[in-house]
Amino acid sequence: MSSRKELANAIRALSMDAVQKAKSGHPGAPMGMADIAEVLWNDFMKHNPANPEWADRDRFVLSNGHGSMLLYSLLHLTGYDLDIEELKQFRQLHSKTPGHPEYGYAPGIETTTGPLGQGVSNGVGMALAEKVLAAQFNKPGHEIVDHHTYVFLGDGCLMEGISHESCSLAGALGLGKLIAFYDDNNISIDGEVRGHGDVPAWFLDDTPKRFEAYNWHVIPEVDGHDPEAVKAAIEEARAVTDKPSLICCQTIIGYGSPNKQGKEECHGAPLGDDEITLTREALGWTHPPFEVPDDIYQAWDARERGTVAEQSWNEKFAAYKAEFPAEAADFERRMAGELPEDFEAKAQAFIQSVNEKGEKVATRKASQQALNGYGPSLPELLGGSADLAGSNLTLWSGAKGVKPNDAAGNYVYYGVREFGMSAVMNGITLHGGFKPYGATFLMFMEYARNAVRMAALMKINPIFVYTHDSIGLGEDGPTHQPVEQISILRLTPRMSTWRPCDAVETAVAWKLALQRTGGPTALVFSRQGAAHMPRTDDQIRDIERGAYVLKDCDGLPDAIVIGTGTEVGLAMEAADKLTAEGRKIRVVSMPSMDTFDAQDAAYKAKVLPETVPVRVAVEAGVSSLWPKYVGMHGKVVGVDTFGESAPAGDVYKALGVTAESVADAVNSLL
Amino acid sequence: MSSRKELANAIRALSMDAVQKAKSGHPGAPMGMADIAEVLWNDFMKHNPANPEWADRDRFVLSNGHGSMLLYSLLHLTGYDLDIEELKQFRQLHSKTPGHPEYGYAPGIETTTGPLGQGVSNGVGMALAEKVLAAQFNKPGHEIVDHHTYVFLGDGCLMEGISHESCSLAGALGLGKLIAFYDDNNISIDGEVRGHGDVPAWFLDDTPKRFEAYNWHVIPEVDGHDPEAVKAAIEEARAVTDKPSLICCQTIIGYGSPNKQGKEECHGAPLGDDEITLTREALGWTHPPFEVPDDIYQAWDARERGTVAEQSWNEKFAAYKAEFPAEAADFERRMAGELPEDFEAKAQAFIQSVNEKGEKVATRKASQQALNGYGPSLPELLGGSADLAGSNLTLWSGAKGVKPNDAAGNYVYYGVREFGMSAVMNGITLHGGFKPYGATFLMFMEYARNAVRMAALMKINPIFVYTHDSIGLGEDGPTHQPVEQISILRLTPRMSTWRPCDAVETAVAWKLALQRTGGPTALVFSRQGAAHMPRTDDQIRDIERGAYVLKDCDGLPDAIVIGTGTEVGLAMEAADKLTAEGRKIRVVSMPSMDTFDAQDAAYKAKVLPETVPVRVAVEAGVSSLWPKYVGMHGKVVGVDTFGESAPAGDVYKALGVTAESVADAVNSLL
Repeated sequence: MSSRKELANAIRALSMDAVQKAKSGHPGAPMGMADIAEVLWNDFMKHNPANPEWADRDRFVLSNGHGSMLLYSLLHLTGYDLDIEELKQFRQLHSKTPGHPEYGYAPGIETTTGPLGQGVSNGVGMALAEKVLAAQFNKPGHEIVDHHTYVFLGDGCLMEGISHESCSLAGALGLGKLIAFYDDNNISIDGEVRGHGDVPAWFLDDTPKRFEAYNWHVIPEVDGHDPEAVKAAIEEARAVTDKPSLICCQTIIGYGSPNKQGKEECHGAPLGDDEITLTREALGWTHPPFEVPDDIYQAWDARERGTVAEQSWNEKFAAYKAEFPAEAADFERRMAGELPEDFEAKAQAFIQSVNEKGEKVATRKASQQALNGYGPSLPELLGGSADLAGSNLTLWSGAKGVKPNDAAGNYVYYGVREFGMSAVMNGITLHGGFKPYGATFLMFMEYARNAVRMAALMKINPIFVYTHDSIGLGEDGPTHQPVEQISILRLTPRMSTWRPCDAVETAVAWKLALQRTGGPTALVFSRQGAAHMPRTDDQIRDIERGAYVLKDCDGLPDAIVIGTGTEVGLAMEAADKLTAEGRKIRVVSMPSMDTFDAQDAAYKAKVLPETVPVRVAVEAGVSSLWPKYVGMHGKVVGVDTFGESAPAGDVYKALGVTAESVADAVNSLL
Repeated sequence: MSSRKELANAIRALSMDAVQKAKSGHPGAPMGMADIAEVLWNDFMKHNPANPEWADRDRFVLSNGHGSMLLYSLLHLTGYDLDIEELKQFRQLHSKTPGHPEYGYAPGIETTTGPLGQGVSNGVGMALAEKVLAAQFNKPGHEIVDHHTYVFLGDGCLMEGISHESCSLAGALGLGKLIAFYDDNNISIDGEVRGHGDVPAWFLDDTPKRFEAYNWHVIPEVDGHDPEAVKAAIEEARAVTDKPSLICCQTIIGYGSPNKQGKEECHGAPLGDDEITLTREALGWTHPPFEVPDDIYQAWDARERGTVAEQSWNEKFAAYKAEFPAEAADFERRMAGELPEDFEAKAQAFIQSVNEKGEKVATRKASQQALNGYGPSLPELLGGSADLAGSNLTLWSGAKGVKPNDAAGNYVYYGVREFGMSAVMNGITLHGGFKPYGATFLMFMEYARNAVRMAALMKINPIFVYTHDSIGLGEDGPTHQPVEQISILRLTPRMSTWRPCDAVETAVAWKLALQRTGGPTALVFSRQGAAHMPRTDDQIRDIERGAYVLKDCDGLPDAIVIGTGTEVGLAMEAADKLTAEGRKIRVVSMPSMDTFDAQDAAYKAKVLPETVPVRVAVEAGVSSLWPKYVGMHGKVVGVDTFGESAPAGDVYKALGVTAESVADAVNSLL
């Protein structure tokens, strides 16, 4: 029987050897947290290496993602499909073992981590998803949703602001099945966080006190190298079910390295061959690089335990299914990420009804109408707003708040926490069972920007709702008026960004966002009213292609005017004016650049034919992305400066975003 | 003699009346915090309304900037150049009283606030600037720098993650002259933060405990409507000089409004004419809208007190100047934001020396060399990094850490706090006396994105240093490899963004960043080595124009290749290859798009002549901004997807960013 220390040393050896072979990486955290990981994974983790998709598995998140070798070692040792050759390919092109854990690369990676503070926030989302799903599906005697979320995190995660947002929220929501382990090793990249010699301290927080202030259950001063102490702490944490738990583990970074442990040196660089030899001696680990003795492999192997555990759950689920067949079917559908079969048909009917109504309405209001239209058939919707429900219009008739003691709702009051909200939404999505949407003003997308990018990087599909999309926001002024933000969204690979011009385009955009796989969607809506645009059925169909001819002329146009959002109205006005002057004008509505770019060449050429080089774009935002469509010699009626505080109409006029400007721009080119 | 309550009611009346007249705005916070403001401004604030630029004034920051009428009322009542007509123009085009306080619009506005959590972070920067400046300049018996920073903040600021970053840092730095007032009114936009009826709680933090955990001095449970209690709390806070203080004021939002006080209703909407009438009655404020009785004006008027205070400081400064003329001159120069007179000459000499050395070196290393070159003549440099000093290479030979008890240094260990750092840098800049620079990886600019934008909005000049600028970062992988980030920076109005291709361009970029006024600079540097490009003196001079011909051919080129950063090397290689094939190729280095765009048409046409329509751009990032220079039919060798974890060379090859791709692109167009 291998000792606990030997089992942990397998992680240490694999980690230092892989980093050494890659000539880069972070051995310190895996070596420091190996003992904690060993206890958690061997004594507590409910998982089945043979099926990383098992719905009721515990979720494990390595928020200090630079310690990726810890996770790869665990997955390899417990029997996931990640063989030793992959560990040897650490940080090499197209391996399953990139520098930071990347979702979708190796089985068992629950989320991509590395950008600090986001992993723990994803974990909050996973624990929230578990709690809501349990409240929605479990029945007396049928606990089909019942698992923990475990998070490892370090000083870096705790310094990041997002840790405040998501952990404060986790406390308010009473996420009792969230258990986080703080790797308290006193070291970050600049050295000793509490100062040393001439270098001052930069992190003096009393972290236990801070988390108590968030309504967490805190277990302070646990020796992170004493397996019994760690085990007792985990047991205590699991016993507290109405609060998340933080286990503060005092560890030595790079544990085992005689000359580098406890120092920044071992944080982010290979130990070096000589030091590795010394470390092997110090640890009593006599095996060559990448070799683990069979008895140690056997002790780690979780496949049999995992199969038994999943089998037991399968039986539980079968019993549930027998008694609650409709709920069970819905559970399976939702965990598979599938929409109800009749969704497309219902959505088309809704879009038709919006078209028939033909209302002038702010697109944020049209967005709420879309939620009311689609919501009733989608129990998987899990909405929310960062303290702007009444402005974002994210509450719909079927919305019900998620409460600590009554979590069966479908709406989260996120508070003023844009970044936390977005990373929590990513966690909810990764957990499965939900279609999260969350809203703020478009400007404050910026507070959350990297979580939005992470959704795109992970190819997951949360829906980010952004209202108050331009200078049309009016009186709140330049701090709140987006200018470059919609373009920022468009720059991110795999992000689908929509800025609809009216209620019909809004309904289509929401439908596509709900149906999308492979990346997130940003839905960008106006504060101010947007006139209804009349369309044929073909035009309605073509909205899905991202851009289409909204208004045309006979024969070859003299010029094409392209608009988005509320400025489509200005484009139409300008076209009328120009037509009256005898010009032949085509108006193209382009709610989604990325969607249009993905169309075939023939469709694109039909909408924007080469034969019409005179083009003007109008959008109340920076002009930078438009030369792609209007060319170097085209014109853009945009906003290449900051906004102004005034009623929306005054701001539009002051900044020259008017139908007259559009018409003048066209005339100047003809 | 007017009662304190009457004085406070003047704020309440002006605020509710201005919001009513504007038909939008936030009366709740000004009415709730009026009593606190009255005590602070009348009994403690050291300021001179006649000279809002007085160096030793106390700084006041309204972090809950939506309560702007509180600040406008205070400035108006105490005698700043902000007359009642301006208050009537609240939220109207080109008034001095926009919806949120905008730096530079009205005298006495120390910073632009509105994006929550940033004001208090600016305040941390101001208090830090005061502390460092005092340590650098004060002499025994000569306390020429000795003022407080006061910050008002609300629940929203406290929920935002950035409040964690900057307040934790303020605690670690022991900023004893920072005093914050928490407007604890239990209300945010979605309603009662601690829950009500069917709506759950979203903010249950024990805020006093949280701030104690940050090493703050906390005064809990102060009645924010009891002037004596507020006064006692401020006195207590001022007495604690080794820690920042948080005064937790329990207030009633919209205090005085019989039907709306204490409710979300009065947070962000006019009270309505009827309710205003009732409020006037309840407050006993019998005066018509925008009328304040003379005795109340007199009681508020701070001009005489202010003149006396400034005069007394002037005498103090004169005594200092007599004894320490050089220090006094330097203080005046730095507070005026002027560089040393010989800076330009010294910088040119340094640039020449870099050119003569002709080293191949990573531009981040060249950046450190530039700091070593410029640093010794610039005592106003106040550098730092968000826990990446050794990677960002921000420490130079003259760098010395700022310590709580020895603050005369010039380098701040910011910890893993990118957003906090950036907003603190804005505060330092606004305070005056320093040229702050602060660094992180380019990717994590995103964590700080809105503070960077705020610097541009405010037209202030901090220097944001971003290293590890592309897929060239290598093994850390896609979470850390910027793809769209440099383009994001370029989208922001007034931001000057530089991505130099070698040490010479780096030295020029640093020089311009240090000399810039009117907006911030982002300096973007490579992790990997960058070959030295040979240049004539004219070419070196033209670097300052943002783009220039680095390599040319005889006669009209067949094609122009434009590159930035490390990809200029690829452009040069491709040009050599194409030249060998008989093509005539011009290579343009474009380290700064915005700088080039600002040149006159003749220069632009000289670099990129209309007569050469065949153009290819190469940059290891998204292609979206390049059609502006290469046209709809030009080609871009870029990265329109996410990166990969592998050694840098492998990633470049895998993503097709190579000299061959550039040459192929040119050939495909010819």
